Amino acid sequence: MIVVGELINASRKKIGQAIMDKDAEYIRSVARSQYEAGADYIDVNAGIFVEEEADYIKWLVEVVQQEVDAPCSIDSPSPAAIEAALTMHRGTPMINSISLEKERYETLMPIVAGTDFKVVALCMSDEGMPETVDDRLEIADKLVNGLLRNNVDIDNIYVDPLVQPISTNKDFGTGFLNSVEQIIKRFEGVHTMCGLSNISFGLPNRQFLNQLFAVMAISKGLDGLIINPLDRRMMANMIAAEALAGRDQYCANYLQGFRQGLFDI
Amino acid sequence: MIVVGELINASRKKIGQAIMDKDAEYIRSVARSQYEAGADYIDVNAGIFVEEEADYIKWLVEVVQQEVDAPCSIDSPSPAAIEAALTMHRGTPMINSISLEKERYETLMPIVAGTDFKVVALCMSDEGMPETVDDRLEIADKLVNGLLRNNVDIDNIYVDPLVQPISTNKDFGTGFLNSVEQIIKRFEGVHTMCGLSNISFGLPNRQFLNQLFAVMAISKGLDGLIINPLDRRMMANMIAAEALAGRDQYCANYLQGFRQGLFDI
Repeated sequence: MIVVGELINASRKKIGQAIMDKDAEYIRSVARSQYEAGADYIDVNAGIFVEEEADYIKWLVEVVQQEVDAPCSIDSPSPAAIEAALTMHRGTPMINSISLEKERYETLMPIVAGTDFKVVALCMSDEGMPETVDDRLEIADKLVNGLLRNNVDIDNIYVDPLVQPISTNKDFGTGFLNSVEQIIKRFEGVHTMCGLSNISFGLPNRQFLNQLFAVMAISKGLDGLIINPLDRRMMANMIAAEALAGRDQYCANYLQGFRQGLFDI
Repeated sequence: MIVVGELINASRKKIGQAIMDKDAEYIRSVARSQYEAGADYIDVNAGIFVEEEADYIKWLVEVVQQEVDAPCSIDSPSPAAIEAALTMHRGTPMINSISLEKERYETLMPIVAGTDFKVVALCMSDEGMPETVDDRLEIADKLVNGLLRNNVDIDNIYVDPLVQPISTNKDFGTGFLNSVEQIIKRFEGVHTMCGLSNISFGLPNRQFLNQLFAVMAISKGLDGLIINPLDRRMMANMIAAEALAGRDQYCANYLQGFRQGLFDI
């Protein structure tokens, strides 16, 4: 299971302000706390600053990696911003994300081709967001095969089937879950990951819904989550769900989490 | 979704004592609180009293139905106890449960044949507990077809694939979950239900694991739970899981639960 800590995102008010103020200390503290809570990757996103995005995301990578010994998830739809961030990044980053949108696909593919970067393959195309399992499989097919042709190893591909809100359509949750199952079945060795928060858009108690949807997705085989690792219940659910889903031999991680007090929530 | 309140079980110390003391007031209070918390059926079990079981379970049915306007789930492996309870029961009960164990099958089948009772069909045979999905399907096949031949409507059959502990075998959780999926697929219109607590046997924080396993099972299609309805988080998880699994049009039940404060936990 890979955990990507989602908190360093400029759309969050305090992060946006810290970026404008070049408040490295605050960014470092958010990186550190996510790392200590179990994040494998620290997501960096400066997408709200259209003009300055490339400069700012490069600065975020620098500041984060001064503080923690973890790779970043470079989170942008802009190949220019991703290239800028890569000039600063040490180690093997995650690229979040390539999609089937023509411009994004064509400019990002040469950047990831032949690398050992982890690559998030987002199921989105120029026709917009997919709604059905078949829509997603069609996009995933083109993305995964495109990446394989460009010498990205299957083990480095994380397909994101794109979570959509159940308040819009009651079947959007099952559509996503069945997509995870189908994608894993179709491409042996591929991974799946997602952010969760869209599932609960428009509903009350969003965090509660997100925490439970994670459990369902893990039982379908999802093995990457873009989450707030400081959300203790989310982390506890994740560890427990892996044990319940048969992905924790002898329940060793679960028992370790118990000894560390993870379930004292 | 059908909720069976599990608390009136003589293996629980206070209930066992109340039965021996003929403390109808206590039994009534436990029936009432489960009913008000959302139980559709009140389970009654006097199994620890081998000699007196038939008398005691009959008394439980009487006392429970004096208090609440709900049917009982008559919970015994003993056809004699079930017959005794039925002489007292008003309305349409649930029989918990028939199995493929020869004696139990042969003596219970005539009791449920041609009735509109809800019948729990437990995936157990004289060879013991099933371990694999195929084992369960084989038993379910014989039970469901046997019930159908005996004029029990498919809509009244609740197959219980039998939860077993992940501490014994890491794949017992997924085995159960996949069985739910397969059984629903194979017998159109059949229901599935289960008690959850075996999943966490031998592990710490059992309630937490049970609550999350319910979420996974609901996402596979399970539509009956034998639980403690006073466990607010279990009930909240159940309502939320149904919405996430596409079984709550317009998230109406979820929003109603929210307005009633169900998620203030």
